[in-house]
Amino acid sequence: MKAITVELGQNSYPVLVGSQLMESIGDFLQFDFGRTVIIEDAVAGGLYGDRIEASLSTKGNVLRLPIEPGELSKSWKAAGDLLERIAAFGLSKGDLLVSLGGGMAGDLTGFVAASYMRGVRFVQVPTTLLAQVDAAIGGKTGVNLSSGKNLAGAFHQPSAVICDVATLKTLPPRQFRSGMAEVVKYGLCFDLNLLSANFLGAVSSDEALLESLVLRCVQIKADVVAEDVWDVGPRMVLNYGHTLGHALEAAGGYSRFTHGEAISAGMMCAAYLALDLGILDVSGVDVHRDALGRAGLPLTVKAAPTELPLFMERDKKSARWVLLEGLGHPVVRSEIEESRILDAMQKVLE
Amino acid sequence: MKAITVELGQNSYPVLVGSQLMESIGDFLQFDFGRTVIIEDAVAGGLYGDRIEASLSTKGNVLRLPIEPGELSKSWKAAGDLLERIAAFGLSKGDLLVSLGGGMAGDLTGFVAASYMRGVRFVQVPTTLLAQVDAAIGGKTGVNLSSGKNLAGAFHQPSAVICDVATLKTLPPRQFRSGMAEVVKYGLCFDLNLLSANFLGAVSSDEALLESLVLRCVQIKADVVAEDVWDVGPRMVLNYGHTLGHALEAAGGYSRFTHGEAISAGMMCAAYLALDLGILDVSGVDVHRDALGRAGLPLTVKAAPTELPLFMERDKKSARWVLLEGLGHPVVRSEIEESRILDAMQKVLE
Repeated sequence: MKAITVELGQNSYPVLVGSQLMESIGDFLQFDFGRTVIIEDAVAGGLYGDRIEASLSTKGNVLRLPIEPGELSKSWKAAGDLLERIAAFGLSKGDLLVSLGGGMAGDLTGFVAASYMRGVRFVQVPTTLLAQVDAAIGGKTGVNLSSGKNLAGAFHQPSAVICDVATLKTLPPRQFRSGMAEVVKYGLCFDLNLLSANFLGAVSSDEALLESLVLRCVQIKADVVAEDVWDVGPRMVLNYGHTLGHALEAAGGYSRFTHGEAISAGMMCAAYLALDLGILDVSGVDVHRDALGRAGLPLTVKAAPTELPLFMERDKKSARWVLLEGLGHPVVRSEIEESRILDAMQKVLE
Repeated sequence: MKAITVELGQNSYPVLVGSQLMESIGDFLQFDFGRTVIIEDAVAGGLYGDRIEASLSTKGNVLRLPIEPGELSKSWKAAGDLLERIAAFGLSKGDLLVSLGGGMAGDLTGFVAASYMRGVRFVQVPTTLLAQVDAAIGGKTGVNLSSGKNLAGAFHQPSAVICDVATLKTLPPRQFRSGMAEVVKYGLCFDLNLLSANFLGAVSSDEALLESLVLRCVQIKADVVAEDVWDVGPRMVLNYGHTLGHALEAAGGYSRFTHGEAISAGMMCAAYLALDLGILDVSGVDVHRDALGRAGLPLTVKAAPTELPLFMERDKKSARWVLLEGLGHPVVRSEIEESRILDAMQKVLE
């Protein structure tokens, strides 16, 4: 097991990466607490909940609150229902919340932890590749409103993040590949080594390889978060591929494409746009194509331009894009001519 | 008009105190914004909403969202409904929320502002004495859960607080007196001048006197908040009279007693307890009795000991009490013998 610290002064916390960590979670936490409430994705809870409960119940009573998998659980009402049950359980300021599952469980639990008694400690136990390399780190929590995803939320840093790569073995391949899109994103924007044949050929059964891969991504994310904890500037570069990606996810009702599939096409679109603007060369675009292809991700997706909120907006020029000024050098651009945006978008829509 | 700054580094903000300020609110705000959503207590909105709207609409569109007066509006569901309407209105990070009304409107609006897009600017326009001298300042926001008041919330400092003492003219006398209990609290704990005949005889029609009184209280609150923004220590002394006071409010279903009536009896109880413990002398207790009496507040309340959650708790010794080690010297004590607590409580229950 290895540890990386997210350096945020008094709010610093460790991200532990290793295998078979569930049995020992209680031993890893370097702070006092009494009772625990575990908010668990029902699938992840079924697989790992008993082991975590056993580890934490040496400190005090444990209440487990299962939530249905899927974005619909990430609602204002669901957060309120969880808060009522936590309050009835009598959780206090010196106690602990744990999230077990993917990004949905982490975002929802984080917001509940931020809101309960104006903030209690919480620990993230992400069980998807996407959550281990991205969502669980950085303190952005939230729930969806009718008008958009994550529109209600809080910044609330976890007290620890525990990434057990053994959990990735049970992921459906399509969900594993969805996480690989974020890995490719880190590779293109920060560290080309992540695009090596080894990493992109990673399968969920090779724990040693997965551990190195998750560690490297966690380090990158931790560095960016430390630089911009409130997400007012530099952190924007983590949104590479997300401008079109988010539009595709919304157009597909958050079910047609995985997050990774959407941002894979989004990164290809950003590459074509950068090529068109003359800031990225053809070989840079080829690296995108090659890396995403080897990770099993789509270079184009089936969607009509008219489905995309981004396309329908009158003021397309105000959209902000992360683009690469050469591989490894992300920059934020807006005020891009509409025709260039449409051209690049159409290259990735079937 | 006078201004006091709550000194919180980058999160510092002014509290403006004066008369007839509603027409000019837009001019007082030293930051840029576009659109505004006003969340208004329906009564306060009826009295002042049009003037505030007129002042702010020079910057951008204004949406007014009335809420029913009373604690029932301070719910998780109400916050969610407001968030949905704000999102549908398209409020963005550069826009503004305004709360207009008493503590309920401020607490609810503050929590909505903290949660919308993980935090947007908000301005407090408190229209009760209680909110002007206490609730509107300090960034504690929240809503009630079934298990207790303010159990869900956030720390989110306003960008400005605007106390128009002319609004106090329209307060029902009982509500005005409720605010005077906090004034007496500041007097007993921090500044005996506040207990002078002038101040305690203040009526809502004497604007000059009210302005001095509110200013002095705001300064005290601002100093305590600056010392302990996250409410982990020194700020606890602001809870003088609140240990029994909160129990009385809960026992009375938040309708039998006003907040001020409950903490008035709570302060008397704390005085008797301090006397019994030998840290406050008889003349100190007399000052309590005299000040609260002149402010028109009850020294005893009709409630049976068995109604009080505090009384029913098995572990009464763990309760924390703010007590006066002599007037003007609040200290926090716990581990007080049960019999002493019961004796003091019974002196204020009829």
